[in-house]
Amino acid sequence: MNEEAMDGATRLEHDCIGEMEVPANVYWGIHTQRALNNFTVSGVPEQRHPMLIRAYAMIKRACARANAELGLIDATKAHYIEQACLEIEAGDFNDQFPVDVLQGGAGTSMNMNMNEVIANRALELAGHKRGDYAYIHPNDDVNHSQSTNDTFPAACKIAIALELKPLIESCDRLRRAFHDLADKHIHSVKLGRTQLQDAVPMTYGQEFHAFASFLKLDLQALRSLTGTLCDLNLGATAIGTGICADLRFRETATRMLAEITGLPVYAAHDPVASVTDMSAYIAASSALKNLAIHLKKAADDLRLLNSGPRAGFEDLMVPARQAGSSIMPAKVNPVIPECVDQCCFMVFGMDVTVNWAAAEGQLQLNAFDPVIVHEILTGMALLGNAMDMFRTKCVEGIEINATIGRIYAEESPSLSAALNDVIGYEAAARIAKEAVEQHRTIRDVAGERTDTPPEKLDYLLDVVRLSRKLGQTCREVGDGDER
Amino acid sequence: MNEEAMDGATRLEHDCIGEMEVPANVYWGIHTQRALNNFTVSGVPEQRHPMLIRAYAMIKRACARANAELGLIDATKAHYIEQACLEIEAGDFNDQFPVDVLQGGAGTSMNMNMNEVIANRALELAGHKRGDYAYIHPNDDVNHSQSTNDTFPAACKIAIALELKPLIESCDRLRRAFHDLADKHIHSVKLGRTQLQDAVPMTYGQEFHAFASFLKLDLQALRSLTGTLCDLNLGATAIGTGICADLRFRETATRMLAEITGLPVYAAHDPVASVTDMSAYIAASSALKNLAIHLKKAADDLRLLNSGPRAGFEDLMVPARQAGSSIMPAKVNPVIPECVDQCCFMVFGMDVTVNWAAAEGQLQLNAFDPVIVHEILTGMALLGNAMDMFRTKCVEGIEINATIGRIYAEESPSLSAALNDVIGYEAAARIAKEAVEQHRTIRDVAGERTDTPPEKLDYLLDVVRLSRKLGQTCREVGDGDER
Amino acid sequence: MNEEAMDGATRLEHDCIGEMEVPANVYWGIHTQRALNNFTVSGVPEQRHPMLIRAYAMIKRACARANAELGLIDATKAHYIEQACLEIEAGDFNDQFPVDVLQGGAGTSMNMNMNEVIANRALELAGHKRGDYAYIHPNDDVNHSQSTNDTFPAACKIAIALELKPLIESCDRLRRAFHDLADKHIHSVKLGRTQLQDAVPMTYGQEFHAFASFLKLDLQALRSLTGTLCDLNLGATAIGTGICADLRFRETATRMLAEITGLPVYAAHDPVASVTDMSAYIAASSALKNLAIHLKKAADDLRLLNSGPRAGFEDLMVPARQAGSSIMPAKVNPVIPECVDQCCFMVFGMDVTVNWAAAEGQLQLNAFDPVIVHEILTGMALLGNAMDMFRTKCVEGIEINATIGRIYAEESPSLSAALNDVIGYEAAARIAKEAVEQHRTIRDVAGERTDTPPEKLDYLLDVVRLSRKLGQTCREVGDGDER
Amino acid sequence: MNEEAMDGATRLEHDCIGEMEVPANVYWGIHTQRALNNFTVSGVPEQRHPMLIRAYAMIKRACARANAELGLIDATKAHYIEQACLEIEAGDFNDQFPVDVLQGGAGTSMNMNMNEVIANRALELAGHKRGDYAYIHPNDDVNHSQSTNDTFPAACKIAIALELKPLIESCDRLRRAFHDLADKHIHSVKLGRTQLQDAVPMTYGQEFHAFASFLKLDLQALRSLTGTLCDLNLGATAIGTGICADLRFRETATRMLAEITGLPVYAAHDPVASVTDMSAYIAASSALKNLAIHLKKAADDLRLLNSGPRAGFEDLMVPARQAGSSIMPAKVNPVIPECVDQCCFMVFGMDVTVNWAAAEGQLQLNAFDPVIVHEILTGMALLGNAMDMFRTKCVEGIEINATIGRIYAEESPSLSAALNDVIGYEAAARIAKEAVEQHRTIRDVAGERTDTPPEKLDYLLDVVRLSRKLGQTCREVGDGDER
Repeated sequence: MNEEAMDGATRLEHDCIGEMEVPANVYWGIHTQRALNNFTVSGVPEQRHPMLIRAYAMIKRACARANAELGLIDATKAHYIEQACLEIEAGDFNDQFPVDVLQGGAGTSMNMNMNEVIANRALELAGHKRGDYAYIHPNDDVNHSQSTNDTFPAACKIAIALELKPLIESCDRLRRAFHDLADKHIHSVKLGRTQLQDAVPMTYGQEFHAFASFLKLDLQALRSLTGTLCDLNLGATAIGTGICADLRFRETATRMLAEITGLPVYAAHDPVASVTDMSAYIAASSALKNLAIHLKKAADDLRLLNSGPRAGFEDLMVPARQAGSSIMPAKVNPVIPECVDQCCFMVFGMDVTVNWAAAEGQLQLNAFDPVIVHEILTGMALLGNAMDMFRTKCVEGIEINATIGRIYAEESPSLSAALNDVIGYEAAARIAKEAVEQHRTIRDVAGERTDTPPEKLDYLLDVVRLSRKLGQTCREVGDGDER
Repeated sequence: MNEEAMDGATRLEHDCIGEMEVPANVYWGIHTQRALNNFTVSGVPEQRHPMLIRAYAMIKRACARANAELGLIDATKAHYIEQACLEIEAGDFNDQFPVDVLQGGAGTSMNMNMNEVIANRALELAGHKRGDYAYIHPNDDVNHSQSTNDTFPAACKIAIALELKPLIESCDRLRRAFHDLADKHIHSVKLGRTQLQDAVPMTYGQEFHAFASFLKLDLQALRSLTGTLCDLNLGATAIGTGICADLRFRETATRMLAEITGLPVYAAHDPVASVTDMSAYIAASSALKNLAIHLKKAADDLRLLNSGPRAGFEDLMVPARQAGSSIMPAKVNPVIPECVDQCCFMVFGMDVTVNWAAAEGQLQLNAFDPVIVHEILTGMALLGNAMDMFRTKCVEGIEINATIGRIYAEESPSLSAALNDVIGYEAAARIAKEAVEQHRTIRDVAGERTDTPPEKLDYLLDVVRLSRKLGQTCREVGDGDER
Repeated sequence: MNEEAMDGATRLEHDCIGEMEVPANVYWGIHTQRALNNFTVSGVPEQRHPMLIRAYAMIKRACARANAELGLIDATKAHYIEQACLEIEAGDFNDQFPVDVLQGGAGTSMNMNMNEVIANRALELAGHKRGDYAYIHPNDDVNHSQSTNDTFPAACKIAIALELKPLIESCDRLRRAFHDLADKHIHSVKLGRTQLQDAVPMTYGQEFHAFASFLKLDLQALRSLTGTLCDLNLGATAIGTGICADLRFRETATRMLAEITGLPVYAAHDPVASVTDMSAYIAASSALKNLAIHLKKAADDLRLLNSGPRAGFEDLMVPARQAGSSIMPAKVNPVIPECVDQCCFMVFGMDVTVNWAAAEGQLQLNAFDPVIVHEILTGMALLGNAMDMFRTKCVEGIEINATIGRIYAEESPSLSAALNDVIGYEAAARIAKEAVEQHRTIRDVAGERTDTPPEKLDYLLDVVRLSRKLGQTCREVGDGDER
Repeated sequence: MNEEAMDGATRLEHDCIGEMEVPANVYWGIHTQRALNNFTVSGVPEQRHPMLIRAYAMIKRACARANAELGLIDATKAHYIEQACLEIEAGDFNDQFPVDVLQGGAGTSMNMNMNEVIANRALELAGHKRGDYAYIHPNDDVNHSQSTNDTFPAACKIAIALELKPLIESCDRLRRAFHDLADKHIHSVKLGRTQLQDAVPMTYGQEFHAFASFLKLDLQALRSLTGTLCDLNLGATAIGTGICADLRFRETATRMLAEITGLPVYAAHDPVASVTDMSAYIAASSALKNLAIHLKKAADDLRLLNSGPRAGFEDLMVPARQAGSSIMPAKVNPVIPECVDQCCFMVFGMDVTVNWAAAEGQLQLNAFDPVIVHEILTGMALLGNAMDMFRTKCVEGIEINATIGRIYAEESPSLSAALNDVIGYEAAARIAKEAVEQHRTIRDVAGERTDTPPEKLDYLLDVVRLSRKLGQTCREVGDGDER
């Protein structure tokens, strides 16, 4: 669209630098146009983050309402501004936000882009021509009582908070998928492995349930982010001083925004500190990283358990999704978990980028919010998509190899632990060692080497009993609340 | 001591691998001795983390009590085990923990080191010889109802939880120091800068208060870690199955540990998931990272504000701590903030190492807790020391340059923002531009270029009024609860 | 296009999983179609990396030629395959590569996508219908003597090697811009600062020249990457065994590729090791990181030196690119360096993501090349764009403040270092201290406190002489070769 | 020693800050004493890096010689200074370097510590009392023609360059150990796995040889670091201006240092750029990271191949080093590879810390060399130790399971790739699929489903032939030069 636009008619705008032609048929103005020309690095425009645009428009609408309620701007103008905001929130103007996401200027370009699009759309709605800023001015009216220092971080935080919803839904769906899989296989015994060495029996159900439990922790963590993200600074304007803002504006605008977003937003305790505090982003990034660690854990374990078909663990089969090799016929690989892993690596890098940007603020501003919000929103989308893909294309189709699981469980030398209480750790160790060396089972050797009655040995070494001892109890306790 | 020990007499011990001589005068046994010989990488022994030793002994004591209460081990033996634990908790046996912190084995070596030292000390207390494990056995008695899978993570988490206290105290002392500094300079006007460009007036008090506010956030975050760290898995034994443990042990041991530590420890919801869940470490590491970001922010800002003495910002002077140059006479550098910065870089690296270790678990165990707890405890000590140093050797001695601050505030072209409401953003911009070009103040140019009455201009552009507008209000609101 | 395609006619294809409809009007086949359906995470299709597509087609062309030369496939078929490759190399089929860049499968999907598009285009050229694989088969013909294990890494490395050229050009242009700026201001004295404290005089020219010198190092480093990237494994096929490949193919295909690409490609020393060795990517990522460190250094220094206009260093002015504030009229910020910084933060995160992917290979394959090549190509594009932007929108327009620079130089107390040889470090320190306390110059105090003759003092403290002492000498030596 | 020292007598010293008592029996002076009091963060003193002390003393000796040769300081004094340096280089004064490694001040404290110890030891040797700086002065004599800006980075780089030797030796020993292991098992067939799925046959020898090949790459990379590390800036003094240094000093001191160290040191091209360029550290850190990736690769693969003893891959057995569990009798874990992995995670964090410190320089100095050199020297020691441990306690004792390896190779469905050339990929895929489903071998099904003669099938599917096809050729080619 930009190119087309450049061919056609233009309107002349000016700012403190000078004059510049802007395509006549766009809603943005000179500030946006300069930014569009200035920032030519990532090729990713702001419109790639529609939730950020939506959140910013919500904030502008809340501020317009507050300005109107407090009599700070004309009610009619405020009405048109609010109308324009609503249309932007609906996504109708996403293509009017063309500036690179890695913009310098601490978000000023995005704020001015928003101010200009709102002003020009409001002017249209009011029957004026675009660019007729004498009637509705991007700075004096749309941006009234505001600065970039307060509205841009607010937009970033609200966007992240709103994106939590779909992310949480994807996470919960995946959790349920693992839970369902666990339920299905709750009675199937398999061997637990620690440090990749045969350990003691457990069930497939327990193994899958653990993946669900991880995600349960992530759901809690993601939900608890909302509180941090709702710490806003509206009305604090430049560097948190409140310059150009009526002192009542802070409370009013915050209240309006709570109504509009349905989020429990509140005014920051220390408005000067709030401008440069990046804690909410670090917390969000860390929560995403932890979720990624859990997803990687599940993906890696499934790849291991799926190893084979002859020379691997063969505990289970993930669904075949595509031919795995251009040269080895009929080879099938666990491509979905591998894709999940790569998304996690992206998120681990994201966390480092966010760390950099968050730790490079200077004096009364951190100018690097733009890269932070870009990285976090990208990471959220990536993990959301990864979880949906993981669930529908892998987890839901997993089949277990119950026969092999049972054999492994019965053959593990670590089963000897079940004899500790009766014969002591050292005697149990001797039995285990002999079992390994002679390729026999613990039951077999113990029958010879101890005088424990056979039926007691059978009881002690019963892999079904052992596998479900503690796990099932806890599971029954815990399940009520989570399904 | 190790070397000495090796010269003298030895006792012969055995394990499932075979036999080995252990120095007669040490309390550790063959498992420790093998580990000592095996892990020769970092040169940092476990004794460098005394809180980890203390926490582990507390857990062993809680388990001994629980075993006794449930009749699982002999009460007399339990008594001696508890006594031995108490002595270890007091720090009397720290030198008996010589194994490398970067040990393989998922903490088994440290668990066995603890089991052996306790057993041997308990044997001594009971009038037996060290090594007489027939009476008190490291595995069968000291480790009864336990495994490394449950006790080692518990020890790590408790150690971190207990180290929070001194860290929080250091953090709070630094917070107060910044707050005191803020109080002292609450009336002194200076210029706020955004993107290193002159912005609008604020006070030195506000600037320093923001540093205190950051730390207030960190204090909250650190305190909230305790909950996560108290999610323990005692009684879950190997891979969370509860094998070798009475089902009542879980509750009893957890209750005992709560009594001993004074921490609100509780049993993990899903014992299988708990073995491999690293969320608590990721959360702790992230909280430390956020604290480091805030410390770096303060250190960096102070270095900038201290720049000069002729060609810099000269807003303030950090105390001279030492001569700054081997060649430039009388040069004095902000060495303390520079030292703080480097501690922060260490913590940023720590966070990545923790990420690696936390994301590399496989199947029923993550074998990399040892490096995680080493990194986190090291990071906590580093930040605690850094904050104490920062406070006593820098923050408490900061002096401001009120004269320069005031001049900067009055000369900033951005003061023109105060005219926005009266003459509009565009007219204000013209005045600002002229002021910059002609090296004049906004007040001066505005007096010429507007017809606003002088007294109104004086009011509008009063830097004292502007600087304290919003900030002071919030400060008064917030202060009650925090001093 | 995909959506359109899906509406229309389809052709039926099959693989080892089963049958599937593929849009009739696309050149890809069932393997691509499955991958397109499977990987739904990043939203970034392979076509976003046209150089990767081009490099892969070059490899396929080299292999077709080698196959033909060795008589391994029919010469006529090989001809059509080569023709198809040439068209793909020209970019005419970029839209036929729709698979997500974060694909699982270690690049098999991209290899099969390439095999299918080539096969279908070759079929068309040969007068056959798309999908008529009996004549030209994606696996048996196009992929003959090849596997994904050898061709995908080769394509990744060649793509990076080819992208080095534009990156190096951007880097060199920026280097020259800094060099030109240095030349222009080689005689202008300013004050050097260490640890943000006034140090000794230097020239603006030296300061800018240092930025050019950094980039000179980067140019060397980037150029030296080519060698590492040319270590290919063609003919090694699956896991480096050479299965399905004539032993002569390795040499022939490598020679063909050298001709086609003009790059000094060679066969890996150890074909098994080569499959999993990621050294080339780590080296490339590190070189990009070092370049980013240098760019950040320049951007950060320029932001500092540009600080002001009243309360900062004011050493220089970066060009005004856009209005800097929505609320502070006429404020102008260094938005271009800020944008550069953010690109660097992205690259720092990239390096960590690459580290993860490179260190997670297992056994005979690292399945995570796709995310690595995506990250590195993205990072290269980002830095290339950032350097072009930095140069044209900032560096070329920098103006210095020679008056202030000179004043700072003359007022620095560290000038006293120039007296060390004559009066000793301690006496010089006393003079410096007095100068600072009394707000006087070193020259002034030294005139009083020493009996050095005035003309000697003038000579010793001549800031022009001091500033150019060593720097100019080296500069003259070094300049010949680099302009 | 410090504490003792504090009890005893003191001598009074002074600097530009004021006066201070220094323990009479130490060789350091007031600058060191202040630094010791100032930096109280890591608890790690400089003496923990003896090579840094040695390298710094070498530099001081080179400078003293150059000063003497050029007649800049008295020859007798220079003689005593050189003698003192030699003693320090021998390690006799390591305990005189007590300052925290994370010192602020860009290394000035370490430089002054060195200047003071040298001065006081030289005074002693000259028959003067410690502290009698009128005869030999730490700044005017020992530090003559020098600054911290040039000597500290030189000491860091030389220390790293000298530590390369033992690191390279450890690396080469490990490489040979893998090579020996490869030779021993060059004829033993096993199954290669890609994406943890059965692929095609290879030999144990090839697998182990790949680990040796990785290290061969690392050896080349480590050796090539020397060039970068030899880019020094002696004589450039403060910020690279050469102030206080005779112009001939640069060449002379560099030549002297080359003689003393045996390293090909040279003067930096651009002395101003050299002060702040961190490229050598980034390159060193990246080389260490790549080595760590290779070590992790070997450790991880060995852990996988060692998995079992019943329910794992069982390809090989790493030596049993210690009992693996406190609860599971006779369980043995791969603790040495696990320890190696953790060292690698430390190095991955190190790389990020180095990135931070390297990218935070400002204007004419990067004040964060101290943390960089601390991290790199620590990382080098860690990896050196890890490689020695890995070799002696794991690699040298590895035993393979040739029987299982052979069975896996023969049962892999991917063997069907060997039929591609004869029957085509699709027919081969049908055979492979049937083999998997019916739990039969490719040979078995192919015998039924194709009309290929049995002897031809035997030839085509001969796992010995297939496994050694390409690998052996290359191995023979490559081996000559490397043993």
